[in-house]
Amino acid sequence: MKVNHFEAVEQVSVDMEGAVGCSVRWLVGEQEDAPNFAMRQFEVAVGGNTPKHTHPYEHEVFVLEGEGVVLEGNIEHPLKRGDVVYVRPDEIHQFRNTGGTPLKFLCLVPNSALGGNVTVTPECGN
Amino acid sequence: MKVNHFEAVEQVSVDMEGAVGCSVRWLVGEQEDAPNFAMRQFEVAVGGNTPKHTHPYEHEVFVLEGEGVVLEGNIEHPLKRGDVVYVRPDEIHQFRNTGGTPLKFLCLVPNSALGGNVTVTPECGN
Repeated sequence: MKVNHFEAVEQVSVDMEGAVGCSVRWLVGEQEDAPNFAMRQFEVAVGGNTPKHTHPYEHEVFVLEGEGVVLEGNIEHPLKRGDVVYVRPDEIHQFRNTGGTPLKFLCLVPNSALGGNVTVTPECGN
Repeated sequence: MKVNHFEAVEQVSVDMEGAVGCSVRWLVGEQEDAPNFAMRQFEVAVGGNTPKHTHPYEHEVFVLEGEGVVLEGNIEHPLKRGDVVYVRPDEIHQFRNTGGTPLKFLCLVPNSALGGNVTVTPECGN
């Protein structure tokens, strides 16, 4: 078992093309040898955004603080604390901070996104 | 894409043996056809607890509100808002609300957990 506060985890800049003012903390991932999926915490600075992109794996997102929008293609969905976002595989998406404070959210991805093994059993819908 | 507030999702009682004052919302799961893992939000009432048990899959947990402890076997780790807990597969664990308000947390599990057996240890319900 591992227990710690998310702010105790190192925060690093996201250097992906199209990312503006984004940083990430890897809360549960390779370091913990998590077998199936990873928990990351993103922070988007005022005026910043994540890349507008798509990929063949899903996101499961929970908004912790701040205000913004998530784009589903060109459709904007407003975001506030406590909102849940499920981004399906291959959906074009982008998170934008439209508020006056940092936008903080959890974003979980399957290990397949990381190049790692996925140990989900075939009968469970993988 | 699916976007909604977690409190808009139906909250149902957890009827597992050993669960006291526990309820759950399935935020992302079978209904969304999520291919790899599920996001649930648990609420443990004042004085309540989850079962003390173990199972062959992991938990990735983020504490949203309240105060409590998580047991790693018989070792208590205090919990507060913003804490992250990684419960490894086959670890005996239990979440207890030791505060004066509901303990709310996210708990994510791989899809393999949803069709599998859960082995409840003799300590369950103590």
